[in-house]
Order: sequence, then structure tokens, then C-alpha cells
Amino acid sequence: MTPGRFISLEGGEGAGKSTQVTRLAEALAARGIEVVTTREPGGSEGAEAIRDLLMTGAVTRWSSHAEALLFAAARADHVEKRIRPAIEVGTWVICDRFVDSTRAYQGAQGINDAAILALHGFGSKGLLPDRTLVLEIGPDEGNARANARDDGARDRFAQRGPDFHAEVAAAFRTIAEREPDRVRRIDAGAGPDVVTERLMAEIADLLP
Amino acid sequence: MTPGRFISLEGGEGAGKSTQVTRLAEALAARGIEVVTTREPGGSEGAEAIRDLLMTGAVTRWSSHAEALLFAAARADHVEKRIRPAIEVGTWVICDRFVDSTRAYQGAQGINDAAILALHGFGSKGLLPDRTLVLEIGPDEGNARANARDDGARDRFAQRGPDFHAEVAAAFRTIAEREPDRVRRIDAGAGPDVVTERLMAEIADLLP
Repeated sequence: MTPGRFISLEGGEGAGKSTQVTRLAEALAARGIEVVTTREPGGSEGAEAIRDLLMTGAVTRWSSHAEALLFAAARADHVEKRIRPAIEVGTWVICDRFVDSTRAYQGAQGINDAAILALHGFGSKGLLPDRTLVLEIGPDEGNARANARDDGARDRFAQRGPDFHAEVAAAFRTIAEREPDRVRRIDAGAGPDVVTERLMAEIADLLP
Repeated sequence: MTPGRFISLEGGEGAGKSTQVTRLAEALAARGIEVVTTREPGGSEGAEAIRDLLMTGAVTRWSSHAEALLFAAARADHVEKRIRPAIEVGTWVICDRFVDSTRAYQGAQGINDAAILALHGFGSKGLLPDRTLVLEIGPDEGNARANARDDGARDRFAQRGPDFHAEVAAAFRTIAEREPDRVRRIDAGAGPDVVTERLMAEIADLLP
């Protein structure tokens, strides 16, 4: 049995990640590949319960260190209960956000990257995606899309200001520069069909 | 302003920790010391929400790694929001369980002690009590007390078998052997007045 591939989509608010997760899954299924889609934080029963603690309440509800530990706990549960079992039976997993989101968002709050990776090593044996696709759009466009989508109940991360989101975007660029084999930047400022084609081009070498 | 002292009480199920937390606080208050009592997991609003995830549900609800991360997250919140602020204004804190419980219980599930301390370093800057008092009773007596107290709804840890609880007791003894200045073993197989006297004797050097 060939293990399934593990693909994560990353990027800031309003970059179109969840749309593209669905479209990428459809494109792979059309080629006969067994695919499941999932998201973080969450994706398993325990991790979704932790998600509720992370995403609701005041921006200052958790210190950045407590937050990083909660993300690591949720991810440990998600990896153990859902991601690894799927990959092991040959299913591809496409995940809306994974450890690079914690590196970018908690990193923008001053948490050391090595510390985040150490927590990931402890909780999830350091599992990394086979490919990570970072969807990039301009900050104004992302904000406009995120505002258009929701009804005012933006989560604890989306509520933060433009400087924070610029730091997150810069953190994703740094990760892509340091890990070019795994992490690819995608210009997501185009129609959804074009973006899906760009994503497929960046995983072409992984296809059977 | 002299900082307050931080005292933790540890031990297995039914050792009388919560009774002695109250009695010790009363004995200190009678000497004019400002005292607060608290408990883990929990002790602050965020940590109590994490406690609900940790203490309810099936024994197998969380992997031991996810569990260790959740304990570290709860403790980070408790230390930041409640314990450090109290100590800083000169109040003594008496806590029913602290990091040594995670070391003993998660250690008995195979988690490396250095890894637990690394998580504690990350989340809580490695804060350790000024003194830790381990209440020891025979396993039969502890089980009888724990059974007499509850109504069948024993938490995820109390549900485990006698071998597990023997390993936990051994882990507490090991910690006490390695850190004799901080950690003291107390024979808790006596009446409550006698046990409180024994606890007070073990913190006599900390009193003003």
C-alpha cells in the first residue's frame, strides 16, 4: 500500500483557502485519487473541542504561550485520530491550515519558531505535509474578502489589526524561503479556476 | 514587598489533599499570613475550561502526549492569571496539585520527565513551588477513601487500575528523592490534625 500524500493550504484571512481545499480535492478525485479534506484548528472530535476554546472569546483570552500549547494539543489529536490513519490506508489528506499557521501566527506574537517546532515534535512526532501551498493575496483584498464573508463575528485572530496580518504574511514568506522543497507560494489574486490550476501545477510531481 | 510563598500539595487519589489544603490555609491565616488556595487542573477561568476537557469522557479520550500539552496549557493560564499575581503582592498560594502531578501521572503513561519539564518551561517559565508536600497513604486506604467520597462518577484518572496508581506513587517518591530541598514526603495515614502538624513542620523554615 502506497501511503497517501498530505497537502496543507496556508495563508492569511480571506486568501480563499477553504474554497481551494474543496476545489483541489475535486481535481484530485477526478484523477481517481481517494481524498479527505479537513481543517485546523479542529478536524477531530477532541481538536474541535479545543478549537472552541481557541477561536472564541476576547483577543486576550489566552497568553501566546498557552495558545501555542493548545494548538499543539489540538494538532496532536487531529494527527493521531484523523490524518495519520487516512495516510496509512493510502488516502490523500488536504488540510486547511497546519503547523505553519502556528509558526506564522504565534511567531508574529513573539514565540520562537524552534519552540513551536519542538511542541510539534512532542505532540505530533513532527509530522510535516508532503507539500504546503501558501495562498498569497494583497492585504486590502484579503481584508475585503474576509469582511464580505462574515457577519461581524470574526474570530480571535481575524480581529487583530493590519500590522499583525502583515507580520503573518511575512512569516509565511520566510518559511517558504527556508523550506522551498515543501513550501510553495501561490499568487491567489486571480479567479478560482486559475488558482486551482496553479495549485495543481505545484503538486504535479506528487501525482501517481 | 516580600513575595508570597508558593506551596503545592501532591499525592494519589484519596490521600486527603483537598482537606489539608484548607487546613493548611487556616493554620497560616491564624499566623496572620495572607493566603489563597487553588487547584489543578484549573484554578483560573481558562484553565477550568481546559479541566473539563481533561477530566471528563473516556480514559482513552486523549493520547498521553495531547494530555500533557493540555495540562501545560492549563497550567500556563493558571500561573499567569492567578498564581504569579498573588505571589507578587505578597500572598501565599497553596495549590492542590501542580507540575509534579503531571510528571507523576504522565510519567506513569510513558512520557519522559525532561519533556514534561520542557513544556513547563515553555508555558510557565518553569515556575516551581517553594515547597511541595507529597501526602502518602497505603494504596488500599487511598482507594477506600476515594470510593467513599464519590458517587461512581470517578474522573478519567481515578478510573485507572491499581498498577497505574502504584506507578504514580513511585514517581512521586522519585521526585522527592531527586529534589529533597523542595519536595517532602508526608505520612498522611493519621488523623487530620496530626497530618496538618506534619505539614506545618515541613514548611516551618519558610514562615516569616
